[in-house]
Amino acid sequence: MPTVDRWLLPDGIDEVLPAEAARIEAARRQLLDLFSCWGYDLVITPHIEYLESLLTGAGHDLELQTFKMTDQLSGRMLGLRADITPQVARIDAHTLGAEGPSRLCYCGSVLHTLPRPLSTARSLIQLGAELYGDASSTSDIEVISLMLETLSSCQVEGVHLDIGHVGIYRGLVQAAGVGEATERALFDALQRKAVDEVNQLAAGIEQSSLAAMLCSLVELSGGVEVLDRAHALLDGAPESVMAALDDLAEIAQVLARRYPHIPLYFDLGELRGYHYHTGVVFAAFVPGVGQSVAQGGRYDDIGSDFGRARPATGFSTDLRCLVQRGSIGLAQKGSAIWAPHSNEAGLHDKIAVLRQQGERVIVALPGQSSIEAADYGCDRVLAFQVGSWSVTELNS
Amino acid sequence: MPTVDRWLLPDGIDEVLPAEAARIEAARRQLLDLFSCWGYDLVITPHIEYLESLLTGAGHDLELQTFKMTDQLSGRMLGLRADITPQVARIDAHTLGAEGPSRLCYCGSVLHTLPRPLSTARSLIQLGAELYGDASSTSDIEVISLMLETLSSCQVEGVHLDIGHVGIYRGLVQAAGVGEATERALFDALQRKAVDEVNQLAAGIEQSSLAAMLCSLVELSGGVEVLDRAHALLDGAPESVMAALDDLAEIAQVLARRYPHIPLYFDLGELRGYHYHTGVVFAAFVPGVGQSVAQGGRYDDIGSDFGRARPATGFSTDLRCLVQRGSIGLAQKGSAIWAPHSNEAGLHDKIAVLRQQGERVIVALPGQSSIEAADYGCDRVLAFQVGSWSVTELNS
Repeated sequence: MPTVDRWLLPDGIDEVLPAEAARIEAARRQLLDLFSCWGYDLVITPHIEYLESLLTGAGHDLELQTFKMTDQLSGRMLGLRADITPQVARIDAHTLGAEGPSRLCYCGSVLHTLPRPLSTARSLIQLGAELYGDASSTSDIEVISLMLETLSSCQVEGVHLDIGHVGIYRGLVQAAGVGEATERALFDALQRKAVDEVNQLAAGIEQSSLAAMLCSLVELSGGVEVLDRAHALLDGAPESVMAALDDLAEIAQVLARRYPHIPLYFDLGELRGYHYHTGVVFAAFVPGVGQSVAQGGRYDDIGSDFGRARPATGFSTDLRCLVQRGSIGLAQKGSAIWAPHSNEAGLHDKIAVLRQQGERVIVALPGQSSIEAADYGCDRVLAFQVGSWSVTELNS
Repeated sequence: MPTVDRWLLPDGIDEVLPAEAARIEAARRQLLDLFSCWGYDLVITPHIEYLESLLTGAGHDLELQTFKMTDQLSGRMLGLRADITPQVARIDAHTLGAEGPSRLCYCGSVLHTLPRPLSTARSLIQLGAELYGDASSTSDIEVISLMLETLSSCQVEGVHLDIGHVGIYRGLVQAAGVGEATERALFDALQRKAVDEVNQLAAGIEQSSLAAMLCSLVELSGGVEVLDRAHALLDGAPESVMAALDDLAEIAQVLARRYPHIPLYFDLGELRGYHYHTGVVFAAFVPGVGQSVAQGGRYDDIGSDFGRARPATGFSTDLRCLVQRGSIGLAQKGSAIWAPHSNEAGLHDKIAVLRQQGERVIVALPGQSSIEAADYGCDRVLAFQVGSWSVTELNS
C-alpha cells in the first residue's frame, strides 16, 4: 500500500497529541481524586470479554455498537467493550458482593462500531461513577451532584440539567394494560413528541383517565413548575407513578438549594435509555452542543443477570469531550530546565536532584546546544558557574 | 446461558478490583510524572486501526498477536493494538514531524490473541518511553537509565540488566554473505545457544575468520569482562561490529558509574526482537521471574514505513506487572470521614469544605449509621457538637 495510506486512521478514531493528552491526563487525575473524595473506589474492567457477558441485560443498541472477534483460545465470540457501566455492575453484583451500599468509579476507553447520533467519534474515554445497594432518591441526588461537580471541576460553563423518570410512563402503560406493540409505538411517538400519534394510540386504551394521562406526558416538560402540573394531571395514577413524582420533587428541591445557578429542566415524556433504566434519568447539556456532555440514571435490574439484583444509579461522561468543552488545564504553562550534554559526574547528580524536586530537565543530545532550549519549552538552563552547576534564566 | 457462566472471563483477561486498581493508578501517576521530569511528553494512541497501519514494519510475531475485526464504515480489516511502540513511532515520524530529537511516552492497554511465552496474561497495561532523532549511544543510555528509574520508582527489588547488540550478529552475517536460509538457521541456533549447530552452520562460510567470530558469539556472555574478550575475539571484524562494541563499552561504563548496584550482564548472541531492533537491546530481570519485567532497544528503521526514517530507541513495561513485582503503594493506609445522612444545610457545606481539602467523606445513605463507618474505611466521623459540625475520632 502507498506510504500515505499507512498513517490514515479509520473515521472517528484519533491520535491524541501532547498538548491535548496533558489536559486529558490532568482532568483524569482531578476527577478520579474528586470521586475518591466522595468515597468512590476505582476499578479497571476488561477491554474484551465473552460477547454474552458483555451484552447481558444491556439491550440491542449496545449489541449493534460492539465490535466482535473470535477467541483463539476458546473458539467463542468476544466483544470489545462499548460501555463500561454493565461491567462495573457485574463487579458489584458478583465479584465484590458487598452487603451494604458500594461506590465504584472507572475511567477507560470504549469503542463503537458506528458513531452515535450527532457525533463522529467512535472512540471515547468513558469516565463514570456508580452507586449500588440503595434504592432511595438520596443516591440519585448524590450521583447527580457528583456529575455536576465533575463538570464544574473541568470548568465546563453554561451547564443545564434535564431530568426525567422512566417509572412514570412505565407505570401508566402497565396500568393501561396495552400490548407490547402498542407500548413500543407509544414510546416511539412520545420520543418524537408526536402529539397526534400519541393521542391516536392512546384512544385505544380502555380506561380513559389513563389514556389522558399518557397524552399529557407530551406536554409535561419545562421548569420545576412542571412537577406541580404533573401532580394535578396525573392525580389518581398508579402508586408507582405518584412515588416517581415525589422522587423528582425531592431531587428538584435539593438540587435547587445546592446548585442554585444550574437551570433544571423536567421532561416526563423523556425516556432516555428506557430499556435499561428503571427510575430517574438525567443529562447535562451545554449551549451549542446537541448531545449531552454527561448523563446517567437509575438501573436497578441489571445485576440480576449476574445473579444478584441490586439497586443501582450512576452517571458517565466522555473525558475527551469534557476537556474540549471545558477550560481545564488551558492555563497550564510549561516550565523546564535545559541541561548540557556532558559526562561530568556533578552535572548528573544535580540533574537527579532537580528531577526529584519535580523539575522537568531536558538533557541535550550530541550536537544540540542551548540555542534549541526554547524549542523544548525550557525557560531555564543549567550552567557551570563559580565551580558548581546552577540554574539560571534562559536568556540571562 | 446459565447465570454462573455470564461472569466468566476469557482466560488471561482480568478485572482489577479497588485495592490493586489504587496501586496501579498511583504507579501510573508516579511514572508519567517521572517521564515528564525527563522531558517525555504523553501521547494517547488509538486502540484500533487499519490492520496494515498497525502491522507495518512490525513483523510476523505481532500479526499473530493481533485481534482482527471488520470495520462497518469502510469494510476494511481493523486490528486491536497489541503493541503501542509502532504507533508512537508513527506519531513522531508523521504527525509531529519535529526536526530535532523528540521524546514521547504512553500508557495504555494492549491485548494479545495468545499469551506470550512464560505468561498467562493476554491483557497488559503497556507503559513506555521513546526517544527519536538521535542515533548516538547517549540516547540509549538515557532510555536505559529511565527504565532503571522506573523500576526503582515502583520499588521493584533485585533488578539486573541484560544488554546485547543485534548489530554484531548482523554485521558478521552480512560480511560473511550467507544466504537468507542460513542466516535464519544461524539465528535460531544462536538463540538456543546450540554450539554444535552454530559450528556446523558456520563451517560453510568461506571466510574462516568470520566463521570463527560467529561461533564465538555463543560464548560471549557474562559480566563486563565479556566486552574485552569480544574485542580480542572479534578483532578484524567489519567496522559496524567494532562500532557496536564501542557503543556497548560506553553504555557499560556510564551505567556502572550511575547505577553501581545494578548487575550488568552482556550477551552478544542475544538477539531479542532481531527483526525489529537495529542496535542495542536490553531487558531488566528480577529473581524468580523468567520473563523480563521491562525491555527495549534501538529500532532505527521503523519510521521509514511511515515516510520518514528516524533514529529511535525506547523501552516498555507492563504497569500491572510492576505493581505486582514492586511494593509501590502497599504502605498506603486509607483514611476517611463518615458523615450522617441529613438535609441540614450546614452539614452539606462542611462536607464540601472537607472534600475541597482533599478529605474523603462518605455520606451515610438512608438506614445506615456510623456503626458501618469502619466497614467503609472511615477512621473519623462528622458530628454535631456545641452548635457546629466537627470531625472527631471514630471511637471517641
